[in-house]
Amino acid sequence: MAPVSALLRRHLRVHQIYGANTDVGKTIFATALCRAAAKLCKAESTSFLKPVSTGPSDEADSWSKLTGHDQTHIKRYAPSTADETLFQYDVACSPHSAAIRSGKISDSVSRRAALGPGWLFIETAGGVHSPGPSGTPQADLYAPLRVPAILVGDSKLGGISQTIAAFESLKLRGYDIDTLLLFQDEQYQNHLYLRDYFSTRADVSIETIPSPPRRSDDDSLETKTMMSYYDLTSSSDTMSRVLENLDRRGKDRIARLESMSDKASKSIWYPFTQQKHLSPDRISAIDSAHGDFFQVLTPEKSSANADDRPLLQAAFDGSASWWTQGLGHANPRLTLAAAYAAGRYGHVMFAGTIHEPALALAETLLREMRNPRLSRVFYTDNGSTGCEVAIKMALRAARTRYGWTAEEKLDILGLRGCYHGDTMGAMDCAEPNPFNEKVEWYEGKGFWFEYPTIRCFNGEWLVDVPSSLRGDLGNGAGFDSLSGVFELGARTKSDTFDDYKRYIHSTLERLHAEGRKFGALMIEPIILGAGGMIFVDPLFQRALIDVVRENPHLFGRAVSSAPQDENTWAGLPVVFDEVFTGLYRLGRFSASSLLGTHPDISVHAKMLTGGLVPLCATLASESIFSAFEGDEKSDALLHGHSYTAHAVGCQVAVESLREMLGMESRGAWDWAKADGWVTDQQHPQDINGMVPGPSGGLDDPTITQPVWSMWPREFVEHLSGQVPKVTGVWALGSILAISMAAKDGAGYESNAAAGLQTFLGKGTGSWNAHTRVLGNVFYVMASLTTSQESIKDMQNLLLEALKE
Amino acid sequence: MAPVSALLRRHLRVHQIYGANTDVGKTIFATALCRAAAKLCKAESTSFLKPVSTGPSDEADSWSKLTGHDQTHIKRYAPSTADETLFQYDVACSPHSAAIRSGKISDSVSRRAALGPGWLFIETAGGVHSPGPSGTPQADLYAPLRVPAILVGDSKLGGISQTIAAFESLKLRGYDIDTLLLFQDEQYQNHLYLRDYFSTRADVSIETIPSPPRRSDDDSLETKTMMSYYDLTSSSDTMSRVLENLDRRGKDRIARLESMSDKASKSIWYPFTQQKHLSPDRISAIDSAHGDFFQVLTPEKSSANADDRPLLQAAFDGSASWWTQGLGHANPRLTLAAAYAAGRYGHVMFAGTIHEPALALAETLLREMRNPRLSRVFYTDNGSTGCEVAIKMALRAARTRYGWTAEEKLDILGLRGCYHGDTMGAMDCAEPNPFNEKVEWYEGKGFWFEYPTIRCFNGEWLVDVPSSLRGDLGNGAGFDSLSGVFELGARTKSDTFDDYKRYIHSTLERLHAEGRKFGALMIEPIILGAGGMIFVDPLFQRALIDVVRENPHLFGRAVSSAPQDENTWAGLPVVFDEVFTGLYRLGRFSASSLLGTHPDISVHAKMLTGGLVPLCATLASESIFSAFEGDEKSDALLHGHSYTAHAVGCQVAVESLREMLGMESRGAWDWAKADGWVTDQQHPQDINGMVPGPSGGLDDPTITQPVWSMWPREFVEHLSGQVPKVTGVWALGSILAISMAAKDGAGYESNAAAGLQTFLGKGTGSWNAHTRVLGNVFYVMASLTTSQESIKDMQNLLLEALKE
Repeated sequence: MAPVSALLRRHLRVHQIYGANTDVGKTIFATALCRAAAKLCKAESTSFLKPVSTGPSDEADSWSKLTGHDQTHIKRYAPSTADETLFQYDVACSPHSAAIRSGKISDSVSRRAALGPGWLFIETAGGVHSPGPSGTPQADLYAPLRVPAILVGDSKLGGISQTIAAFESLKLRGYDIDTLLLFQDEQYQNHLYLRDYFSTRADVSIETIPSPPRRSDDDSLETKTMMSYYDLTSSSDTMSRVLENLDRRGKDRIARLESMSDKASKSIWYPFTQQKHLSPDRISAIDSAHGDFFQVLTPEKSSANADDRPLLQAAFDGSASWWTQGLGHANPRLTLAAAYAAGRYGHVMFAGTIHEPALALAETLLREMRNPRLSRVFYTDNGSTGCEVAIKMALRAARTRYGWTAEEKLDILGLRGCYHGDTMGAMDCAEPNPFNEKVEWYEGKGFWFEYPTIRCFNGEWLVDVPSSLRGDLGNGAGFDSLSGVFELGARTKSDTFDDYKRYIHSTLERLHAEGRKFGALMIEPIILGAGGMIFVDPLFQRALIDVVRENPHLFGRAVSSAPQDENTWAGLPVVFDEVFTGLYRLGRFSASSLLGTHPDISVHAKMLTGGLVPLCATLASESIFSAFEGDEKSDALLHGHSYTAHAVGCQVAVESLREMLGMESRGAWDWAKADGWVTDQQHPQDINGMVPGPSGGLDDPTITQPVWSMWPREFVEHLSGQVPKVTGVWALGSILAISMAAKDGAGYESNAAAGLQTFLGKGTGSWNAHTRVLGNVFYVMASLTTSQESIKDMQNLLLEALKE
Repeated sequence: MAPVSALLRRHLRVHQIYGANTDVGKTIFATALCRAAAKLCKAESTSFLKPVSTGPSDEADSWSKLTGHDQTHIKRYAPSTADETLFQYDVACSPHSAAIRSGKISDSVSRRAALGPGWLFIETAGGVHSPGPSGTPQADLYAPLRVPAILVGDSKLGGISQTIAAFESLKLRGYDIDTLLLFQDEQYQNHLYLRDYFSTRADVSIETIPSPPRRSDDDSLETKTMMSYYDLTSSSDTMSRVLENLDRRGKDRIARLESMSDKASKSIWYPFTQQKHLSPDRISAIDSAHGDFFQVLTPEKSSANADDRPLLQAAFDGSASWWTQGLGHANPRLTLAAAYAAGRYGHVMFAGTIHEPALALAETLLREMRNPRLSRVFYTDNGSTGCEVAIKMALRAARTRYGWTAEEKLDILGLRGCYHGDTMGAMDCAEPNPFNEKVEWYEGKGFWFEYPTIRCFNGEWLVDVPSSLRGDLGNGAGFDSLSGVFELGARTKSDTFDDYKRYIHSTLERLHAEGRKFGALMIEPIILGAGGMIFVDPLFQRALIDVVRENPHLFGRAVSSAPQDENTWAGLPVVFDEVFTGLYRLGRFSASSLLGTHPDISVHAKMLTGGLVPLCATLASESIFSAFEGDEKSDALLHGHSYTAHAVGCQVAVESLREMLGMESRGAWDWAKADGWVTDQQHPQDINGMVPGPSGGLDDPTITQPVWSMWPREFVEHLSGQVPKVTGVWALGSILAISMAAKDGAGYESNAAAGLQTFLGKGTGSWNAHTRVLGNVFYVMASLTTSQESIKDMQNLLLEALKE
């Protein structure tokens, strides 16, 4: 099954008819619409599609009795309408979205579109949430198709409420409701209230027709009465006005979509983009997104008569929208969490107040990090601001401990190629690189270590030692499996570990002798993301942390006499920037568990909200927090943003973490783990992290879990050896990274992976993949909810692309 | 009428019974609940409250026929229940929330609470959105009460959809749905589906009872049948299980609320807060917020027997939640906009893509700013990051123009007391002050002018010249009215303007001679917010901008030969940080219109989303944008956040701006303007900004609008002269600022306004005000939607406080 593309055609107006309730007259309105449409175009170009036949028991009330079986009714009163039923209700469909994903609806739309300009009305059964054959409510089932809705309102008693509620349920699934249709009920006059209600709240036109006549027992009389009812509705302008409005909105939607890239190229200043090279045709106009897929406007194909081609195509979101996606685009669970917080609080200023979502999120993070050092949560709006806060925290703690003045120049210890964000403080944590070298106020404030890296090549997992370090660290080694890399229990007993520690120690001694002062060790655990998807040998990071903590004398002489316990920071505050690597991106709640160690400060963003809204949490230990205690307000951490701990973000994060934790405990990724990553021979206790040392960690049950990836081991190892141009591969959690041979030299400004990206962007014809590259490194990233099937589809597309 | 407090009592369980549809059996469930409750406590402590009697025509279907008039039914079958109807349907109620705001419901709850432990069930009519007497849907009307809901599901055909839709509509108004009750329908079995549906989606228990018997025409038979039906439901455990669950949830809610401050004090690291002084009792536990009011847990009063006291009290959000609120807390319009974008997109990465909310917002901002210079929108997440982007833009543009190298030290020109945010780059734009002086990496990069300020004293609007400037600028002047201050048309022809310009020019000459290089003029127009609500003489800011633009030679010699037109920046890029002052905070879409001039870069956040979620837009001119054009990617503005242009924020902003613009064009603030600010004598063209000069502005119709405030002129001028301790007052747009005599010296660390704050925090007994102070400056801020009545309430409370 191909991914689902949204349904949009240039000359075929496709609409979906939803009812605010069962028995509101959907079939009567459908018939009236079909009759009116037949007058506007070739008769055979008006069609009525019932994706699922729900059988005679489905609608049993007055108007349903009147209309009987929908298609029979439409055949009788709008005889030129083509109609089609795709599924029978009694056919059990599995997986649950088969009715959509099978492509039958899309095929049906294509057949109609080929006939030229026309109308297609898609029927739904019951109300908006009435379950489809699989049990999924229809509003959820059909949402990815992005077919504009015609909502038939409820004109009966209570119908005002039903109509507004149905409208809202559709809205919160991203539906555009193009029109609201309603019978004129003399008694309740719901249409008057609703017209007034929506006039100030939504861009939706409301049209009404008289209620249909009462049913007669005499069939021929019945037919005659109904026929004259339909003739009456046809002779009024109402239905043609409805169609004109629908047609205009359809045209407007397409015209807008087709103009957006051009307008954007003139009015948007894009992040991280040299716009000289970004011609409008290279800007993707995104209609919507669901699950793993964007719905993207397809480029004009000038050669063919393309009037009936699909205008939207599904594109796999291969960068997980800049690494943010955890639970899929447009996840109704997150939507409802956001809406609940918005409806309960809006935003509440956060100095000296507390609200449930902020407290619940803090408690969840502190509990699930399983890091006994962490006790405090500071909220900001994104990873960059969260890292700035982390640095402010660490520098103050170190300065207080070592008795330095505010004027003394403090640096941080980091790794080359690190990236912590784009605000100036975060930029200053990175060594000079193409991201910052032309930025006027940039001033790198640190020392950045070189280090051994990991890649899979020819099926072997190699430790690459950069040439400059080979004198100290030797030539590296290889492992049979990814698990081997993380067997820190064994590896910390090896000579390599001693070599790493000796090299780090002597470097720090030299820096100390030079008089340099450091206020933090700041690292991205395991993977340096923006730096080029660099997989650092975890043993090196572990050695770095251990050496820093074991050797306070290399940094200063403590002047504060604050009480110390095993959770007090030692040497330097250790900051983990887990903005990218945390919260299951590498398959675990915290990437720190892969190092079997605990940071003093930990920064979390991106997946924190499951991929919906910006939010960041910087977690810190009490020994860091207490450095800001004082009598003066100016001693405090005077940092804050207006929307600090905004309720919407916190509530969405609480819901996201609950869902992610639930997926882990339900074994949601067992299929991936079983795909070569976890073998029966592995004893959990061998895997890694069993040496507590100064880093703690033994009490953390998560560190004995296996390492795994959603990208099958066999596939990864195949790429690593069998595919020319590929110089290395790794996979961990939801990430797959492929290093390409780069004639023009590796690095951020290389274009080596661009060919791969271009091929994937063209795709299969029915779908494609939207990806990002980092110089010569191509990567693709899934959500936690990505199906095995989608992973397979991407694998196949990648293999084809690599053949080029 | 006092503001509405949410209803929460320690021993009275108050619940509101909502129906998923009309005719779902609300009265039967209410009766069964009353009967069950009567068994658990003193019989007279179970009550049934019908806020509005909707008359016999309201419910006309089968079960309603069965139950007839609700209270008659309950009286018959649960005879010990106390019941009360507050309003008759035929009484027209205005304003629309009279039923809530009159306090009748609250009074009724208080009477019940005084009777001791018990239950109170509040009835609704029809479905969740069925309109109350005023036309407002009930779910909106009752939302501020935060009474937990009992949702009676629909067990009939189509009822699955109705129940889910009603659930969602309540959720998106912040309701907690404590239980879902449903009849067991043999045919449809909706309860089975719904139990499964909600089990994975919500924390709501589902309980069912058998459907009631069919109605009999024989009244005594009818009574007998119903009585045995109720006896049956009573003898089963169902209803007592429901009540136990409701009781447990009620207790949990209170226990949680009462524990939150303590937990927060241990796990939250608060922004801008010296936590040494923040004992748990000073942390406000916020249950919810609606409109202008928080609902805050009231502190324990140990002296009295307080078991029946209200646990929540309304508190006016006097800082507009750190200056973010524009359209009130929990505005359903913004909630639905957020939910729509979440449901349509989730988040879509924004490098090289475009989606409707991001484009529509950019177009709206560029259009409504009415600044012909601005053509580009760069999105970030908050004002601080947006200001960093503005600085990066300006510095690059200046460096390119003047041919400086990336290594040369560039500063900015600003005003003393300015504030642009807490990330390092934004901090470096401010001169040393208590916010930054102890921050390790802070390094002020600029020259900051002193300047004359404005305050109202003794009814006169004075220009205060600081003593250091009196030699150059004289001793200041006074105006009869606030409008006079802004009559820049006349004032730019005055000697004062010449004095200002001469002083600024000579200062810049001196700095140039010292070899200092500047890359931007960056100011907060009119009001310096965090610096202490400082009202800068607009004539001075205007002079500063004019001098900078007229004298490029004071900054460098242009080396670039880029084409120039009237929209090209001159002298230095002029950056307006309108994060606080823009988007109607000062009564106008852009504060720049008050200066009759156009910046080259403009930063907008806070009210941008109406006060819901973080988002920032930095607008720039094409001449700034083109400075980043180059062949290299590294020439580009390499700044970006993962959630750049997140769809939820952009959609909410589009909706907010639409609403704000609509309010302006509907004259929504005419009541405020009429309150002394706008007089008939004023000719619009006299008011201000009519001198275009190098600053442009003549083409902007908004600059001829009057200046005004929501705080009445008479009140402001009264405070300024009649109240001891007050040394100055000003009001503009939604802000009122009061400078208090400070024995301990003015400034951020002063506590002079703290007494006022404390008094307001205690409030009237039925409500209070949550405010922030800035040293000796007390301020209070409204939303654009704040009513004249609430302003009056605040005025009276303030006057009382100032008597102390």
